[in-house]
Parts: sequence; C-alpha cells; structure tokens
Amino acid sequence: MTNGSLKKTTVLDTEILHPSLAIRTKEPPNPEALGLQEELPGWHGYLEWEKYPERKKEIKEYMKKFDFPGAPEFQLVPLPKTNPILEGVRWKQYHYALGKAARDIPAESWLFVEKEKSPDMIHVLQFPYNGEPPRDRLVATSITRNEDHFVRNHGGIPEIDEEKYFFDVEGLVNNPRRITMRELKDETLFPRQSTVVTIQCSGTRRIEQIHEYPGDGDELINAPWGEGAIGTARWTGVSLKKVIKYCGGLKDPSAANHVEFLGADTYFKKGEVYNYAVSAPWRKVKINEVLLAWEMNGKPLPKIHGFPLRVVVFGYIGARSCKWLTRINVIANPSMGPVQQKEYLYYNSQVGKQNASYSSGFSIQDMPVSSAIMSPLDMDQVIHDGKIKMRGWAYSGGGHWPVRVEASGDGGSVWYEVPYQNLSEKYFHAWRLWEIELPVDAEGWLELVVRCWDNALNTQPTYVRSAWNWDLHVTSSCHRVKVFSINRTRPKTAAKLKMFEKMGVPFLPITQPGEMDLEDEESYLREMEARGGRDPVE
Amino acid sequence: MTNGSLKKTTVLDTEILHPSLAIRTKEPPNPEALGLQEELPGWHGYLEWEKYPERKKEIKEYMKKFDFPGAPEFQLVPLPKTNPILEGVRWKQYHYALGKAARDIPAESWLFVEKEKSPDMIHVLQFPYNGEPPRDRLVATSITRNEDHFVRNHGGIPEIDEEKYFFDVEGLVNNPRRITMRELKDETLFPRQSTVVTIQCSGTRRIEQIHEYPGDGDELINAPWGEGAIGTARWTGVSLKKVIKYCGGLKDPSAANHVEFLGADTYFKKGEVYNYAVSAPWRKVKINEVLLAWEMNGKPLPKIHGFPLRVVVFGYIGARSCKWLTRINVIANPSMGPVQQKEYLYYNSQVGKQNASYSSGFSIQDMPVSSAIMSPLDMDQVIHDGKIKMRGWAYSGGGHWPVRVEASGDGGSVWYEVPYQNLSEKYFHAWRLWEIELPVDAEGWLELVVRCWDNALNTQPTYVRSAWNWDLHVTSSCHRVKVFSINRTRPKTAAKLKMFEKMGVPFLPITQPGEMDLEDEESYLREMEARGGRDPVE
Repeated sequence: MTNGSLKKTTVLDTEILHPSLAIRTKEPPNPEALGLQEELPGWHGYLEWEKYPERKKEIKEYMKKFDFPGAPEFQLVPLPKTNPILEGVRWKQYHYALGKAARDIPAESWLFVEKEKSPDMIHVLQFPYNGEPPRDRLVATSITRNEDHFVRNHGGIPEIDEEKYFFDVEGLVNNPRRITMRELKDETLFPRQSTVVTIQCSGTRRIEQIHEYPGDGDELINAPWGEGAIGTARWTGVSLKKVIKYCGGLKDPSAANHVEFLGADTYFKKGEVYNYAVSAPWRKVKINEVLLAWEMNGKPLPKIHGFPLRVVVFGYIGARSCKWLTRINVIANPSMGPVQQKEYLYYNSQVGKQNASYSSGFSIQDMPVSSAIMSPLDMDQVIHDGKIKMRGWAYSGGGHWPVRVEASGDGGSVWYEVPYQNLSEKYFHAWRLWEIELPVDAEGWLELVVRCWDNALNTQPTYVRSAWNWDLHVTSSCHRVKVFSINRTRPKTAAKLKMFEKMGVPFLPITQPGEMDLEDEESYLREMEARGGRDPVE
Repeated sequence: MTNGSLKKTTVLDTEILHPSLAIRTKEPPNPEALGLQEELPGWHGYLEWEKYPERKKEIKEYMKKFDFPGAPEFQLVPLPKTNPILEGVRWKQYHYALGKAARDIPAESWLFVEKEKSPDMIHVLQFPYNGEPPRDRLVATSITRNEDHFVRNHGGIPEIDEEKYFFDVEGLVNNPRRITMRELKDETLFPRQSTVVTIQCSGTRRIEQIHEYPGDGDELINAPWGEGAIGTARWTGVSLKKVIKYCGGLKDPSAANHVEFLGADTYFKKGEVYNYAVSAPWRKVKINEVLLAWEMNGKPLPKIHGFPLRVVVFGYIGARSCKWLTRINVIANPSMGPVQQKEYLYYNSQVGKQNASYSSGFSIQDMPVSSAIMSPLDMDQVIHDGKIKMRGWAYSGGGHWPVRVEASGDGGSVWYEVPYQNLSEKYFHAWRLWEIELPVDAEGWLELVVRCWDNALNTQPTYVRSAWNWDLHVTSSCHRVKVFSINRTRPKTAAKLKMFEKMGVPFLPITQPGEMDLEDEESYLREMEARGGRDPVE
C-alpha cells in the first residue's frame, strides 16, 4: 500500500473504522505493547498467527480487556436499507484493538472494493467484505465478469508483492518445500490447468431463511445474502496434485488425509485469533479438482479475490478455496482451524442455540443442486400477454451438473421444462443459465418457482422450511418469487390498462388506488340483476 | 364540544391535522363560501349530505380543486414502528378542505380516543380512528371491557346531546315516524332486549394478507389490523323489529327488502361525500337479530362507539352496525351507499386493480368461522418443559358458534382438541376464548396453528393464500405463529441454559451468539471418532 492510499484511509477513519472502543479494564490496554508486526516485507497486511502459539495466547488474554459490541440484530427486525447493508463494526474494532499493524486493514480493504468491484455491487457486509452483483447482471453472461463476481471474505485483504511471494508445502509430504511464484509458473516444472468453475458461498439465498426463521447470529455475522453469492470464472493455474508430487508425494497415503490451506488473512473466533485455515480431502486433490490459480478469466487475480495465488476447489463450498495462500499442510484429518471445524456446519432443524455442538453438524464440502430465479423479482407486478419470461441460474456441485430446469407458475404443482436451447453450455463444475417463457393465464398473486435436476437425479427440497438449519447455510430449496400477474390478453384487464394510459395515471404499484370509479351505477345494477341480486329469492 | 376542548384542538392542529394542502387551482379555494353548517343544534360534528343532492354535487366539484396525497405505501414496504401506525393524512385533509364546520373533526375525534379508550391501544389508523387492544388483554375476559373494545370508525366522532337526539324511520314502512331517545327507552312502548354479541371487523388479521400478498390501497386505507379487531359486549336496547312494527310494519314485505341505516358521520369515496350508510336484510330484523343499542356492558355507549344510539347486527361484519344512527330506511334492495355497494366485497383471488368491479365481489354480511392465537406471539422463543401454553379466541358469525377448537404444534398435521373445560361459555352470537397446554417435544422453529369448527361443521381455510382477496378482507385461514421451541426437559438444552444462567448472560434472543465455545476440542475429537470421522473409510 502506498503512502497515498494510506492517507486516504486516514480520511476514512472516522467514516468507517468506528475506532471508539468501550474498554472494560480500568487501565486502557496498550496495543503497541503487543509489538505486532507484519510478517514479511512485501506482504502488507499479513500477520502470522499459526506459527506463534504464544502470541495467540497473549492476544486471547488481551482481547478479553475489550467490551466489543454484540452481533447486530438484523434477523428479528427488518434489514437496514443501506449499502453496505451491514458494517461489521465488531470486526473493524477487533482489528483496531490490535494496534498499528492491523488497525488500517478494514479501511484499506474497502479501497480494494472500490477499485476492483463494480460500483453497483450490493455490499452485504462492509468488513470483512461480502458483496454480490445486481441480479440482472449476474445472469447476463455465463462467465461472470471479474468485477461482478461475488466476494465473501473472512478477514482483511492483504497486498502482496508477487516478486516476494511464495508458499510453503509442509506436513505429511516426503519433501516439504517452499515454492515461489516464478517456479509455479514455470511450465517445465508444472503443466498448466485451466477450468471453468462455479464458486458458490453456502450463504447464497440465506435471506430467505432469515425472513422465515432467524438463526445463529454468529461471530462474523451470518450475512443476509440474496441469490448472488455465486459466480463462474475460467481459473488458470496448476493442479495441486502436481505440486504435491513435486514435493515427493504423500508420506502416508490414506483416505483420511486432508490437505490444509492457510491464508494471509486474520480470522477471529470466540475471542481468539487465527490465520484463515481450511482443508479438502486428498481424494479431491488426486482427481485434479483442486487448482492453485493465479488467473481469473485470463487476467491476474484481483487482490480482493486472492492475488497473487488462491486455491480453487471444484464443486465445493467457496470457503475451501483459500485466498492469499501462505501454506499447504498435508494432515491426517480435516483441519482443526475454526473455519473448517466450527463453521460451515449443517445442523438438523431441531438444533439451535440451546444445544448446538460442532460435532453434531456435518461439514459442508460438496455443494448440492440448487437454482434461483433472477427475473422477475419477488413482489414484482408483471403486465404480460399470457407468458411471463423467467431467467436465472442452476447449479450442482461435487462434479454434478444441471440436466433439467423446471419452472412453475402455480407454486409448484404444474412444472414446465426449460427448453434445452435455453440452457447455457454444460460444464462438469459450472452452473447453467436458463430462461423460459412461462405460460401464465391466471391473474393475481402467483408463486413462480424453479427447481433443477442434476445428472444424479438430485433435486431441491420443496420449501425453505424443508431444509432450515441453525447456521442458515445452503438455502437450496425450490426458489420462489411472488409476482402479481396482470394478463393483458383478458379483455377486462386490457380495457382497464387502456383507461389508466388514457388518463396518464401510472397503473403500478397495484397498492395505489386509481382515481376512477370501478363500475358505474347502471352497469352495477344490470350486473346485480343478472346475478339474481345479493340475497336468495325466498 | 366545549370551548375548552376546542382550545385543545387548536393546540393539536400542527401535531395531527396536517392542514397544509397542495392546491392545484391557481385561485385558492375558499371553503367558507360553501357555507357548510352543522345540521342540528346539539349534534356537534354532524353534517347532513344525503338529504341535499345539490350540496353533494357541489362538494364533488369543489374537492377536485385539491391535490390530496396518494394512499400511503405501507404494503410493499414495512409498516412504520409508530403508534398511531398510520395517520390518515388524506382523510384529515378532506375534512380540513371543507372549512370551519368540518376542519376540527379529526382533532376532536382524537380527544375521544384519549378519553374513552385504554392508553395502550394499538392505534392502527389515527383518523378515522381504527384501534385494537393489546393481545393479552383481549383474551383476559370473555366480555371485553368497553375501553378495550376495538374501534373501526369510518369518519369522525360526532358529539350528540341525548336530549336532542332522535332518529327517523322512513321508506317502505306503513307509518314513517321520528322517534326520540325518550320514546325508545319507554318500556311501555318497546320491550328491552339484552344480548351478548361479538362484533368483528372483516379486517381482523389483515396484516397477514398484507405481509404475504399486498392488495388494494383503498380510499380509506385497508388498515393493517392484527388479531384484535374483534370484541364482545352485552348490548342492551330495543329490537329493530319492534320499531318497525311501531311504524306500522312493512309496506311491501318481500325477501329482497333491506333495512338501511344512516349515521351522522361523514364518509368519502372517490372524491364524493356521503353520510355513512349500510343495510341488513329484513329477514335478519325479523328474527330479532338487529338491535338498536344504547348500553354497552351496562354502561351508556361511549361516544366513540356510537352514543347515543347505534345498531348492532348479530353475527354480521361490524360495518353493518351503524353508529350515531340518524335514519332507518326500509328499501327494496341493499343500500346503494358506498360502504354497502363498493366496500366490504369479497373477490376471487384473480381479481385485482386490473379487473375489479363491485358487482363481481360478493357482499360480506355473515362472518365465517375463524380463530386466533393470542399467546405466544409470532417469533417468540419459548423455553418450556414439554408443553407450550396457547391462548386465543374462536368465533363464528351468522348465528353459528364454536363447538371445537384444535391446536397443532407441527404446522397443521397433528391436531390436539382444546379440552371443553378450557373453552369459555357458549353464546349464539359470541366468541369463545380457549387455552391449551400443547404437548411439544420438538425444538427449533415450529408453526403453532389453531383452527375452529363451528356447529355447522364449517372450519377454516388452511393458508392465508387459500383465501387471499384483493380488498384483503376476512383473513379467516388457520392462524399460524412461528415460535422457536426450547425444551428444557432435554438434558443438553437444560445444561446449556444452566451455563448461561451461571455466566449471568441472557439466553434470548437466540440471534445473539453466546460468548462460550460450543464444544471443547477433546469432546469434539471424541465425538468425531465415534461418528467415524468426517469422511468415509475407503
């Protein structure tokens, strides 16, 4: 980060850093006494924790001195109509509390959002940055533009000099080694792999669970995602399998082996500090479905997406695709890092604050079949001529792919198949976009629904309730939007619309009463006579 | 109204009258040129319209000069968190526009709310006043206290001197006549009738329709009622049948005959002005189910409820129970007053702004079977020992009565019968209160549901959607509340609750994360081993 941008962060301090900390101890804590420093030259914003257990203990005690605010209440009350929707005050304060080496990370990270993402992103959480693109643009192209690709970060964004960059391969490999970017890009050492892969956050469509049944407030806020926490890119780099081979292969191959990834970002959980750490099973690496990528759609990775190097685990929850990779660690079992052990767990619907334990949730790795309607939007009032055009995405993880997409205009009783011509290309690891002209005769409020079948005949749960879970993950139930249908092929409707047009009064929204009377007295009386009056004859 | 209270209205002007009118004409309209005056001495706030067709025409033209604001948008956005919830700005302005004789009516009416109703009423609409009592008090007694009885007014509240009060009986009776209060109370002329009757507004529980499917914005705002637009009182007065007999009986008895009631309040519809007017069929009068009442639970009618005399039509929608009665008019067919002809219509679910006509809706007279859960409330998080206590009301109109009430803890699959001991007394025309200790084993979000069966085996539609209608009337579907169940008879739950208690940290709301870790590492690893690890063995 240059001095110039540091200056800008100073300006931003008062706006977004919320540096005022309510301190519980009588003596104000002195963050500089911690002596925290960036780990390496050229790795701005990178603090190493996992190599220094004593430091972690010290920080745990130190953090107890602060009275950080509770999780914001946005589940039992309506969401704020702001963008960013949520600010991440607590996480900004965690960083601020650590002193000079960390305090500017939230503000600096926000500058990358402004620089690298579309200006009209929906900022679900300002820090750590979580954002999704506007719905119409998400399904405009089957390969998502880099600036529109959703971001779900778990900490700040480090700025790493590629020339100074390397990662270490450690643990149960025969020859642990340090690999530089230059080596990795050397095609005489490593063949290139380039694959179209959809990455999806398990929080996609969480807002539906929140609306119906609020859940875990979480340390890092269960962000209220819409349908846009998903994106597709062509990722280019080297298969992790080749890198492990380059390190002499596994010491003790077994089905239990996991490959752990550590990132340069800082993660907090229950008052403790960590580097981001997750893992994927060796089986997944073995079939070349774990990529170390430096290119996203033919361009260098944006900083916000993990520059200079990130992991891409095909068909898995996005959380495993570690950014700003610092270490690869082959271990006997899944990572004990909190993101792997304590987060992204899928609980039975009777689990909640009163009885949740990490072991009782299963770990979300492969993503299930799901889909979403991106147009029309929920609560839209659609004037049409007997057909409503619907558009959206459909996806299945774990190497499965969408083979059929179906839409319903009646809440899920009658299903229409999306014509195969209207489905985008098939990939083993990517979504398919779809559109359909859904025949709709009925007027009034209708529930438009979509569901996808994947090649293993998996389809989606019926209702949000069917798959509600305490941590509000994987809202993969049939996606439903309510629309008010106004069918212009019906004479009475056509006449009424014409009348509004003639008067120059907008017809929508439907909740605004029109100025004209609905029926004149003469016609009313004639109609009532035809109907035999209001009451029986005798 | 005394000078004293008029003074107070002046103070209130700026707070609640919103007298600023955007005027479309170049010349500001002069309301005093209309020369409107109160109709009768001792009848403060009573303007007569129906006897003066020329005046009505004049007002229609005059009202066109104003650019009154549109209906407030509260259906497609969340309701304001204020009490009053809605203000009724347009209706205040309509009155203001009419000049001196009408401009203070909104402020004066509000003084009656403050004087006659409980201070903690939920003011759904400030003017015309619409309000309901807090939920717990509504089901505290099977006879509703006068100050807690809901109010759904359609205009301002006149203040009528009982000594000066009379009403006229006109139309198809053999001897039209004027009857004073003194005559009506003369037991040598009219025998008394005293009956326990539930009055219900067809808007009860409208908020559920609004939440799921917004509808007609309406002239007078389809107020966002909860479950409290219902109340029960012992009404005392004279059967209308006796009064008609006193007037020589019907001129031309026929099944089609209706008896029209006119009130002293002013009603607006589509830019025209009216006196409140509705009707009930002669058949209903004939069986002594239409009462002219001056007593409510042994006390004189409160002003806000129609003092000195109102109609009470048993088992019908409250709208027919005309307040501040000025005239009774026997007519050949239902009233053509806008409240009867153009309001309180029940449409097919495909009818909306694009095709609604008055004749295509049927008129709401008899109220159907319905019920509501008044405790627990929607979104409550209930800590219990295997049983959740539910309380509420059940009602059926048209002379039917609740014979069975059933509750479900699983969204309506398994139903428990409310023990007959827990149902309040049976009346032909009143609700029954109920309570049940519902056996609940499950934890997490549950849908508690209630339904009622009446003596004709009618029961309620299943979902809000089953009976959605454009004017958002009669939300009589099975009432559902979502509660998060925390069952303390389960050891894991009991232990967690104890832990919170010991730490002195409140357990609720569930969306606030606890500070403690969910599971220690040792127990996690032991559990995972018992479960055979995260991944398959081979």
